[in-house]
Amino acid sequence: MNVIGKMGKRNTQKAKKNMKENVDDSASNKEFKILIRRIVQKTKIAEGELAIYDILRCIYRNQPISTKKIGQYTKLPLPIVSKVRTMLEGDKVLKRDDRGAIYTKEGLTFVEKNLGLSLKNDLKCPLCKGKTIVFDEKFEKIYKRHKEIAKQRPAVNTLIDQSFATPETATYRATIMADRGDLEGKRVLFVGDDDLTSIPVAMSGLCKEVVVADIDERLLDMIKYFSKQNKLHIKTVKQDFRNSLPKNLTDKFDVVFTDPPYTLEGVKLFMNRGIEALGSEGVLYLAVSHKPIDEHIQLQKNILSMNFLIAEMLPGFNFYEGTEIIGNTTFLARLVGKNLVKLEEKSDKIYTGQVKPVLRYYKCQKCGKIYEVGGKIKRIEDLSCDCKGNKFYMIKRSKLRD
Amino acid sequence: MNVIGKMGKRNTQKAKKNMKENVDDSASNKEFKILIRRIVQKTKIAEGELAIYDILRCIYRNQPISTKKIGQYTKLPLPIVSKVRTMLEGDKVLKRDDRGAIYTKEGLTFVEKNLGLSLKNDLKCPLCKGKTIVFDEKFEKIYKRHKEIAKQRPAVNTLIDQSFATPETATYRATIMADRGDLEGKRVLFVGDDDLTSIPVAMSGLCKEVVVADIDERLLDMIKYFSKQNKLHIKTVKQDFRNSLPKNLTDKFDVVFTDPPYTLEGVKLFMNRGIEALGSEGVLYLAVSHKPIDEHIQLQKNILSMNFLIAEMLPGFNFYEGTEIIGNTTFLARLVGKNLVKLEEKSDKIYTGQVKPVLRYYKCQKCGKIYEVGGKIKRIEDLSCDCKGNKFYMIKRSKLRD
Repeated sequence: MNVIGKMGKRNTQKAKKNMKENVDDSASNKEFKILIRRIVQKTKIAEGELAIYDILRCIYRNQPISTKKIGQYTKLPLPIVSKVRTMLEGDKVLKRDDRGAIYTKEGLTFVEKNLGLSLKNDLKCPLCKGKTIVFDEKFEKIYKRHKEIAKQRPAVNTLIDQSFATPETATYRATIMADRGDLEGKRVLFVGDDDLTSIPVAMSGLCKEVVVADIDERLLDMIKYFSKQNKLHIKTVKQDFRNSLPKNLTDKFDVVFTDPPYTLEGVKLFMNRGIEALGSEGVLYLAVSHKPIDEHIQLQKNILSMNFLIAEMLPGFNFYEGTEIIGNTTFLARLVGKNLVKLEEKSDKIYTGQVKPVLRYYKCQKCGKIYEVGGKIKRIEDLSCDCKGNKFYMIKRSKLRD
Repeated sequence: MNVIGKMGKRNTQKAKKNMKENVDDSASNKEFKILIRRIVQKTKIAEGELAIYDILRCIYRNQPISTKKIGQYTKLPLPIVSKVRTMLEGDKVLKRDDRGAIYTKEGLTFVEKNLGLSLKNDLKCPLCKGKTIVFDEKFEKIYKRHKEIAKQRPAVNTLIDQSFATPETATYRATIMADRGDLEGKRVLFVGDDDLTSIPVAMSGLCKEVVVADIDERLLDMIKYFSKQNKLHIKTVKQDFRNSLPKNLTDKFDVVFTDPPYTLEGVKLFMNRGIEALGSEGVLYLAVSHKPIDEHIQLQKNILSMNFLIAEMLPGFNFYEGTEIIGNTTFLARLVGKNLVKLEEKSDKIYTGQVKPVLRYYKCQKCGKIYEVGGKIKRIEDLSCDCKGNKFYMIKRSKLRD
């Protein structure tokens, strides 16, 4: 054994201003550790100290930054981010600016000293926004057309975990599928498509066939309408995914796309339907929301048990409108399957509302009045404000992590 | 049930030149299917027909293209690509151009008709080359310095599965680690580092500590030399990873980087050492080579059993010098662990040469003479040509897929 230097001790490079001397043993470091531990205890944050570091680093690189954007960046729920921010303000690490959270002078020194922060910006590709692909001229046109179409979507139905991916996201999905060779000459099935991803996919003109199966007739009617209007030849099928696919959809597709409900059972159910459509092999694109790590590992174990390889896992690929609470982005996974097998379906309570009832709080965009949704008022669609406003922001959601 | 249109049948959009009428039933399509099946049988390619489609699509988008580049793009072994190409030439689908494979006029119509190909180029981000990150000014400088340093590396030792990632790849690794917050104020251990990734990582000046453990003393001496020369304060430790890490390296690190041997047992062993270094939680970066799908799924199952989440899986991230045979790129996985557990080590035959003895064929760059390595001549380092040339290209490797 040949050990050079002391292991597990900070090296002291006097020249580097972000690596000051004797930091480990300073009073500042003790204070820092106590502060972080106190925040973790108060907020009961599942990811522990690492999540607080993520928030501190996010603000360091992006200040001033709003609570909402911190949530998007760190993939942490807004109520948690908000609590952490308030505590850090109480301790004078942060202050409030018109434009969001910002470090105090002392706070800045404090985190540079104790967390070693020094990078003032991200290093993500500005052209593809970390997605690995870009629109060419053709997909740029598709994006513009799809943006106009998407404006006509009906109100989101939160009871079945619908939330709309942005038109940009839908077009990026079509782009990556095209790049990976999963559109040209392929039969593509959408197992649910409230994101309208089928529209830019069909607009590419690359596929042999595009079929959308969904439980929501309003959505299917709309897709039929857009398809006819734009000569896209998308086929639609009404399907409750708690039931197996009919024979004429079984073992007929090369590629499946699904952005399933948030629960483990929901994902399993939608993927089982995808496997029925693919037969023994094929490619499945899966949008995966951020979850507590144990649950996320279980989800990936399920994927592998089905004999899918996780060929790509791209964080922050999918952006959604109006779901700030779950950090507003999800992963896109490209799964390649061989000798596919379905998993046992243990429960038909696949939607978030059935598994863990949650209360959501919506604020009227016009007058600012706040309403509770999920109890007496069941769905956001049923809500209309006393001031006759009918646009709402979700501002809080309780029991998210229980 | 409400089915619109016929499922599983190609729709006929006369307007689109890439989707000609009556293709499914044409003589051309039968001929195409027979051709593909014959190629799969002759080449015994593990990935089946999909691999042949990948080769056809790759050439369609990139023609004229060399066999080597087709291998890089499709991640298929060169001897297989070469066989497929020869067969496609025999059937007059392809012809040979000075610059590589190119479609005949008939071949082009043939694949457009039967595979639905029409995209003439990839849609990967040209700025980050599909990596999701880009160099800023600082990392651009680091890349330039590192390129100079890397020129002084010793000859590759293929007996222990060494192969050098390019200096660009090493710097991209440092960049993504910096972006993800895995360098600032962190203790980073390299479980093996023949790629010299520790150099750009240390150059970033962001880490609390950078330690390299490796079995190869020549490599450690070189890293020590570069570290001293450039004031990088990298610590080095000689370590055979078949043995557990010593106490002073255990439970001391926040982040581990490893580009382990190609075998499942090798990956497991190196990751076990990584877990020892991290303790119960932390981040592990893993370079993963392309493998047959069953083996690859097993590898991912092992990762999850250790309680690592596959937080990112980026294909084509790592480029290597002189390993055309394995397609020349590997995945980069970012794994986030909580309550980490090591897996049982079943064998100490971790290196490719021990598990499945292979013969490699090297061609002298100067006179073109071909030598067999792996039998009488054990290692490429031991090879010198009759013409006194000492630079060789690997041109063939047998038993790769057995």
